Amino acid sequence: MVTRTVDLRSDTVTKPTVAMRAAMANADVDDDVLGSDPTANRFEAEMARIMGKEAALFVPSGTMGNLISVLVHCEVRGSEVILGDNSHIHIYENGGISTIGNVHAKTVKNNSDGTMDIALIEDAIRDPLGELYFPTTRLICLENTHANCGGRCLSVEYTDQVGEVAKKHGLKLHIDGARIFNASVALGVPVHRLVQAADSVSVCLSKGLGAPVGSVIVGSKSFISKARRLRKTLGGGMRQVGILCAAAFVALQESVCKLEGDHRKAKIIADGLNEIKGLKVDAASVQTNMVFCDALKGSNIIVSKLCEVLEEHGILIMPICSSSLRIVLHHQISDSDVQYTLSCIQQAVIQIQADAGKGAAVEHMNGKV
Amino acid sequence: MVTRTVDLRSDTVTKPTVAMRAAMANADVDDDVLGSDPTANRFEAEMARIMGKEAALFVPSGTMGNLISVLVHCEVRGSEVILGDNSHIHIYENGGISTIGNVHAKTVKNNSDGTMDIALIEDAIRDPLGELYFPTTRLICLENTHANCGGRCLSVEYTDQVGEVAKKHGLKLHIDGARIFNASVALGVPVHRLVQAADSVSVCLSKGLGAPVGSVIVGSKSFISKARRLRKTLGGGMRQVGILCAAAFVALQESVCKLEGDHRKAKIIADGLNEIKGLKVDAASVQTNMVFCDALKGSNIIVSKLCEVLEEHGILIMPICSSSLRIVLHHQISDSDVQYTLSCIQQAVIQIQADAGKGAAVEHMNGKV
Amino acid sequence: MVTRTVDLRSDTVTKPTVAMRAAMANADVDDDVLGSDPTANRFEAEMARIMGKEAALFVPSGTMGNLISVLVHCEVRGSEVILGDNSHIHIYENGGISTIGNVHAKTVKNNSDGTMDIALIEDAIRDPLGELYFPTTRLICLENTHANCGGRCLSVEYTDQVGEVAKKHGLKLHIDGARIFNASVALGVPVHRLVQAADSVSVCLSKGLGAPVGSVIVGSKSFISKARRLRKTLGGGMRQVGILCAAAFVALQESVCKLEGDHRKAKIIADGLNEIKGLKVDAASVQTNMVFCDALKGSNIIVSKLCEVLEEHGILIMPICSSSLRIVLHHQISDSDVQYTLSCIQQAVIQIQADAGKGAAVEHMNGKV
Amino acid sequence: MVTRTVDLRSDTVTKPTVAMRAAMANADVDDDVLGSDPTANRFEAEMARIMGKEAALFVPSGTMGNLISVLVHCEVRGSEVILGDNSHIHIYENGGISTIGNVHAKTVKNNSDGTMDIALIEDAIRDPLGELYFPTTRLICLENTHANCGGRCLSVEYTDQVGEVAKKHGLKLHIDGARIFNASVALGVPVHRLVQAADSVSVCLSKGLGAPVGSVIVGSKSFISKARRLRKTLGGGMRQVGILCAAAFVALQESVCKLEGDHRKAKIIADGLNEIKGLKVDAASVQTNMVFCDALKGSNIIVSKLCEVLEEHGILIMPICSSSLRIVLHHQISDSDVQYTLSCIQQAVIQIQADAGKGAAVEHMNGKV
Repeated sequence: MVTRTVDLRSDTVTKPTVAMRAAMANADVDDDVLGSDPTANRFEAEMARIMGKEAALFVPSGTMGNLISVLVHCEVRGSEVILGDNSHIHIYENGGISTIGNVHAKTVKNNSDGTMDIALIEDAIRDPLGELYFPTTRLICLENTHANCGGRCLSVEYTDQVGEVAKKHGLKLHIDGARIFNASVALGVPVHRLVQAADSVSVCLSKGLGAPVGSVIVGSKSFISKARRLRKTLGGGMRQVGILCAAAFVALQESVCKLEGDHRKAKIIADGLNEIKGLKVDAASVQTNMVFCDALKGSNIIVSKLCEVLEEHGILIMPICSSSLRIVLHHQISDSDVQYTLSCIQQAVIQIQADAGKGAAVEHMNGKV
Repeated sequence: MVTRTVDLRSDTVTKPTVAMRAAMANADVDDDVLGSDPTANRFEAEMARIMGKEAALFVPSGTMGNLISVLVHCEVRGSEVILGDNSHIHIYENGGISTIGNVHAKTVKNNSDGTMDIALIEDAIRDPLGELYFPTTRLICLENTHANCGGRCLSVEYTDQVGEVAKKHGLKLHIDGARIFNASVALGVPVHRLVQAADSVSVCLSKGLGAPVGSVIVGSKSFISKARRLRKTLGGGMRQVGILCAAAFVALQESVCKLEGDHRKAKIIADGLNEIKGLKVDAASVQTNMVFCDALKGSNIIVSKLCEVLEEHGILIMPICSSSLRIVLHHQISDSDVQYTLSCIQQAVIQIQADAGKGAAVEHMNGKV
Repeated sequence: MVTRTVDLRSDTVTKPTVAMRAAMANADVDDDVLGSDPTANRFEAEMARIMGKEAALFVPSGTMGNLISVLVHCEVRGSEVILGDNSHIHIYENGGISTIGNVHAKTVKNNSDGTMDIALIEDAIRDPLGELYFPTTRLICLENTHANCGGRCLSVEYTDQVGEVAKKHGLKLHIDGARIFNASVALGVPVHRLVQAADSVSVCLSKGLGAPVGSVIVGSKSFISKARRLRKTLGGGMRQVGILCAAAFVALQESVCKLEGDHRKAKIIADGLNEIKGLKVDAASVQTNMVFCDALKGSNIIVSKLCEVLEEHGILIMPICSSSLRIVLHHQISDSDVQYTLSCIQQAVIQIQADAGKGAAVEHMNGKV
Repeated sequence: MVTRTVDLRSDTVTKPTVAMRAAMANADVDDDVLGSDPTANRFEAEMARIMGKEAALFVPSGTMGNLISVLVHCEVRGSEVILGDNSHIHIYENGGISTIGNVHAKTVKNNSDGTMDIALIEDAIRDPLGELYFPTTRLICLENTHANCGGRCLSVEYTDQVGEVAKKHGLKLHIDGARIFNASVALGVPVHRLVQAADSVSVCLSKGLGAPVGSVIVGSKSFISKARRLRKTLGGGMRQVGILCAAAFVALQESVCKLEGDHRKAKIIADGLNEIKGLKVDAASVQTNMVFCDALKGSNIIVSKLCEVLEEHGILIMPICSSSLRIVLHHQISDSDVQYTLSCIQQAVIQIQADAGKGAAVEHMNGKV
């Protein structure tokens, strides 16, 4: 019987802490759709301050935060957004910006560090002279940290540069900052500075920060005013939402300081995996709380099989594809969990390779090979 | 200084009870986007059971519940929905089914009791032979209780009849059951029987039931499976949402039995208002927890002024238009609040009429009239 | 064998005249998508002049003309349009403004003369203060002549009044003027005066005017510039479209003066039908080229049967429903055709009633009645 | 004064031939929206036969042909289409599949020959197991010949391979065959064989084939039936469209055999340009009627300037960017035009380079360099 779970599937899996639960139980709330919830109002004001923007809006999820942001900037029919071909918005959000929002997606290749070449971004901007057959470019989206690029961070310099390009062409800049606090901690840069060039940012509260539910978007007052209306349209307006904001408040206080520990543990995992024969992590890429690990060719390690074996030991890990898996650290993974995990993976790999060897031997004996 | 508020703007303004807060503080939760939240799963199973449908899905709001339901039934481009011209979906949800969902709205006149004439519904169904220039009718929507029609209830018989029409023409039937429990209590009919003819129902947890946040939609497994995906697209997928479901669970247990009291108090308010000179309530229309009250012509009562005066006495009421207001009862309005409210209204009306008299006298003296 | 067809289904069925064919054969054309087609450019300039607007755009159909117009005025997501519940846009254009264009439709009851009450229009305009849950009203649509209302005309006074309402609320006014020339002729008012209050008008060239293909939309330069781009998006940009414009040019010259004859013949048909027992036309409603005729209850006339019998005599008429049909006059229906048609209808009605009588007798004999 | 124009901007600029004009003047037509136009019906039947599909539909433009095709295959909300990042649909059609059609675009890199790597296509297909956050892949689009890739042809083998991939994954295959007849002639393969694997094809009549207006889409009867309805929605239903179909009929007979000549002349142009110092054409890429020509770095040739000079000599050529231009051959460009063009370009280049030299000298004298 499994009595303990080490859940490394995502940093979305954290359970609310005791302090968060207490905050939720005692939150001063009212109807936020009518604008009366004091906790929601205070939380939004605080998030705006932290992010260095005029206003903020609590939303049920990062997906809604991104969707609203793109749709507000692209409110006129015929808009196009430039975004990374490996970005969360493009890959993991059901294509909502098009299928729900009628925005045309123009992707630019994401480099392995999560950036897009500035020159490629500029090339992707539509020539307004060709407007008879071109959609109108209205927005550039960045993602920081970049989930599909191993959780790597975009620097202030890079972000500012993209901001310059946007300004030069009259475009808006949105940052999908689901894990922007991880980037802030890893780079040692205040989070408001990291997003200074952006017209809007979505920040996830229920990832590394550990709140049970919610994201927040920040921007100008006018942006947030339109966002509030669109949130209502999409059905994201919630009544006594101060309950959730109260937990998010605690998350801000408790969890930002824990992110450094998550990053340290990610590096330990990466180094440990690199010592296991048949597995390979690009250690340089481990900048925050994510570890992407490949099973080497010829290693006989089938990732889905590996994850199954680990699950029997109470360790949950998500395969990315047949030869690659992703491990995500968060504040409810202890140093002991890290050691336990590395040890179990080591054993599992040995077992899988042994089984593969036997299988090959049997097949060989049976004349199949 | 106002030290007590009697908030009659809506039944969405209730504060979570002590039991709800305790439930939220102690809820057993996990990542619901990954399908792992035990409280969410239990709550959805229970709601499906109560509503007599195969499956259920928790959503952040009634607006999202209706939006998802309409969009699932109308998943093919070129769909049209038949709905009441006074329905919440048509009037108060930002036109989201069209502006976000590409569904064409065909309205049918709502009678004052919230029904639409069966014959008019049938007339509104598009002839499939004219399909070259007709959108395809795919859905009929009802609303029970009907908010804009005074919170009146649709009967089982009527609902079944509309269900027959839908079936005959191969259409789906959705019920916006934001306050379906009020209808169930008022009619003395089990809620599952009231929605038996429906393919989907949205039910609000944060209205009369008093939960802090959320609605639920119910339907077939296949419907809910599509709804779950669309909820993700819209950004309504929440992580440790079991927190909110725990409160909703308590709401189910605590609040359904209180609805009868709300209805009784609404009738007391209605009768009381009818005794105030210059105000008029259609008493027969007060079937559940809503009271619509008109200021009679010649009464000199300006509704917005009346609401302002009441606010000074800690009573919040929403004007509907210049001559009409809406009062909504909920479990946090006591019998004493009802008496206090009636008394304040009585006084306020007298004062307003006296002021109007003086104003007229002054104008008369000044030769303006 | 039928050797002659009297096609009264619509005024869209006319064949190009000899002069139109010659014009098409000799048109000076070039690539209109590149803006180089001289005939298209000349035709658009002429239409703008006639309609009293800054600019014009040729489009493949009236449906596209209306769709583009609504979408240009409602270019911002979250728009609502006010239009007649019996209007062509609402009933016969596939709901394209919603299903393709994401615009929410708010219908107002069409009176039998094609108007909507001014007070109802004003009521339908959304209060901007409620904008959190309201779509934004951006446009009012009129239809002149109003097809579903018997081809009746909206007066200058009425149109101007609606224009005032639009202006007062910062809305745009679009006129679906598919048959605006019929209205102009019937009212004896220059067409530009009839549409003076409108921000855009769509005019059909292939209805009463008799051109083989096309409509035109007119409005401000800025409107037409956006319309041109949207025409390209929808796929309505055509290359050597001067071919079609050349025919439309001839139509303008040849056909406007023939409309009066169409109206005169419609009245003859109406009077003639009223003399046939069992049929009823509201003669007052016959203002232009359309005649709607009802089969009286108890007359035993089944309209679909009547149309079938007429088809055997080379007369094509469209049933509207089981007890009503529509006859549309156009310049290729002669006075003799009118007499022939009336005579055939007279005979057919007699025959149908006789057959019905026999059927009833047989049923009676068989004891079925 | 320019008395003759050599228009090499596109093969869309051709003027209707004498035979086409005669055909239009004499076409037997009727109302095609009512399905009665005999010439349209015959033309669509013939196109279906030629393309080897069950049915065909005439549409006003290639853009509408592609838009309808994508939207029919992706009729269910939440669809994604895989298409080339350099494809006409993605680049030059206003993003209509998203901005009008709500389809999410997933681009795959186009190789310089217009293909996409089969492996990349397969990678781009969404895993149905991840459907909670993935849109549903429903369609693959190819383009043959590929305009942005120099008019190069996709082979039967390649097309069949992509068709296999589509079939294996339950996807549809659409071919943007705007210039499919050019591919057929260049490859020496019957056009129906080239599109055998496709579920739908759009074919342009007003490009190389020289018809004044229109495209046609072909596919199964069920596909065309849905397409016909969507054509009406978009406003592409035209009345006496047989006029245009009559011209297209002639185009089919007259022009297919002329395409080989266009290709031959393109090669002559390519070779001639390669002999002009400072210009460079990838001769191997010239497979059909297009020539893409680069101005070499250091050549001092500014393409926009070159095109201006040529326009003074009656030669119209479109610049693609500051250092590249596109020449498109068609049946109204004679061998003499080709020689005249090459000679004028030669002279213009010399003149531009001389001017640039003088400018540099002057700047040098003025101390600017």
